[in-house]
Amino acid sequence: MILIDGKQTAETIKAELALEVEHILKNGGKRPHLAAILVGNDGASETYIASKVKACKKVGFNSTLIRFPSDTSEEELLEEVLKINKDEDIDGLIVQLPLPKHISEKKVTETIVPEKDVDGFHPLNVGKLALNLPTFVSATPYGIMQLLERYRIETAGKHCVVIGRSNIVGSPVSILLSRNTYPGNCTVTLCHSRTPDIEKYTREADILVVALGKPGFVKANMVKQGVVVIDVGITRVEAPGTDKGYRIMGDVDFDEVAPKCSYITPVPGGVGPMTIVALLKNTLLSLSNKLSINH
Amino acid sequence: MILIDGKQTAETIKAELALEVEHILKNGGKRPHLAAILVGNDGASETYIASKVKACKKVGFNSTLIRFPSDTSEEELLEEVLKINKDEDIDGLIVQLPLPKHISEKKVTETIVPEKDVDGFHPLNVGKLALNLPTFVSATPYGIMQLLERYRIETAGKHCVVIGRSNIVGSPVSILLSRNTYPGNCTVTLCHSRTPDIEKYTREADILVVALGKPGFVKANMVKQGVVVIDVGITRVEAPGTDKGYRIMGDVDFDEVAPKCSYITPVPGGVGPMTIVALLKNTLLSLSNKLSINH
Repeated sequence: MILIDGKQTAETIKAELALEVEHILKNGGKRPHLAAILVGNDGASETYIASKVKACKKVGFNSTLIRFPSDTSEEELLEEVLKINKDEDIDGLIVQLPLPKHISEKKVTETIVPEKDVDGFHPLNVGKLALNLPTFVSATPYGIMQLLERYRIETAGKHCVVIGRSNIVGSPVSILLSRNTYPGNCTVTLCHSRTPDIEKYTREADILVVALGKPGFVKANMVKQGVVVIDVGITRVEAPGTDKGYRIMGDVDFDEVAPKCSYITPVPGGVGPMTIVALLKNTLLSLSNKLSINH
Repeated sequence: MILIDGKQTAETIKAELALEVEHILKNGGKRPHLAAILVGNDGASETYIASKVKACKKVGFNSTLIRFPSDTSEEELLEEVLKINKDEDIDGLIVQLPLPKHISEKKVTETIVPEKDVDGFHPLNVGKLALNLPTFVSATPYGIMQLLERYRIETAGKHCVVIGRSNIVGSPVSILLSRNTYPGNCTVTLCHSRTPDIEKYTREADILVVALGKPGFVKANMVKQGVVVIDVGITRVEAPGTDKGYRIMGDVDFDEVAPKCSYITPVPGGVGPMTIVALLKNTLLSLSNKLSINH
């Protein structure tokens, strides 16, 4: 069994990105610049945004964090988005989700100009992904594809079973792994809450991607020997006696399942650390797209 | 075994559409208007376009057919598209594919304004489909969903196996049947040219959608008793002694497979006649969208 080390892989990619930034600057280019908007001060969102800003610094990107109070109107927020859309120095823009209930996440997402939508949530970018056109792949699917690629895991002709049909993980992952490329060329089965006898499918999987948000859902008797397991779950479960009082659990019962796997991602330290890398990579891609259009 | 009669279903929907048009006109609305561009005079394309124009007439739509010689430049074609984009009387625009090799189909497709893209090929509309947002569903996937719905075929919790991952059939059908709605909520497996042991999957299918373009590919021993078969294949095969010298064959060996099916679409007369209906429905939808924005 090989443990897929997302933390280490993320560090490797960040080091590569830092070199690319140096290279751009040496050639007279500009520093990549990511802008992030945070509305309100939800604890988890604060943590996510802080790590994104920190990651930018680490690879030599500029970052701008724009904060709005939680009672900001949708109009004010959209105005800021429109302003950043036009700001030539900013290459990527993310709006940290979730947003307060009085603001439409859909409207905000669709207002970000697709060329700066480094989260890959704009319908135009989702459509390009489905059509196998160059685009920004969103964070978690990107992280999964990178892990498969960096560990040189064979995917062609394999049966990949994806559990969970969310717009941000299950659905794009199933599309990406079906494509005629590497990683890809899998026969993909997409399972979800309406799938009866889910074990029937998971037992057939050569590659199992689990993204349903139920801690410890996948047990050893649900997988076959030699399976590759990608665990996307991150749920806080109470852990009395620990410092934080909780721990992070994946959707896979790691202790039971790991011995049967050829490869498995741990939680934490698997897919999680890769998501921020996607954001950085997309921001750099946005800058390169701009350069290739201007030249 | 119930034969799914696409021809009859298409006629029923056309009659419904004709009533809707009457209703719109009675209420002082305008007649839906579809514009079609045909470049060159490929035989099959001429036939398709002619049936589209005829179908418009039948349901009371206006239609405009714009012809270009096959040596038209990409620029001239794009100019015409831009002109139609701005023409307020035209609700839907299609450009008949394939185009001559010197013209980029991608560029043309992406130049049609998404609000008039009644073929549903623009990346923005594909993205909306993937995100389960209201959009124009493209012709064949739309036809398949309508047939499932009109024959009240149960889909929730069923295992649907789709063969073929094309952008215009397999991929969107797999997305549509995964969605949390009716028809949908299927566990979907997408198979393609890189799937080994394809029978392993087809034998498990409750619903089998076949779109790979190999006449007679699916045999009786590849399906289980009671399966629902949707045959998207339309290949001309030589048939000496017939009037035309050829006949149209589907991807399913109908004579062998039909006795095992609960439902099956014939070829011709199954999915085929439904595709033009999709175009009409989308054109009407485009007009209604305009009305709902203006009011």
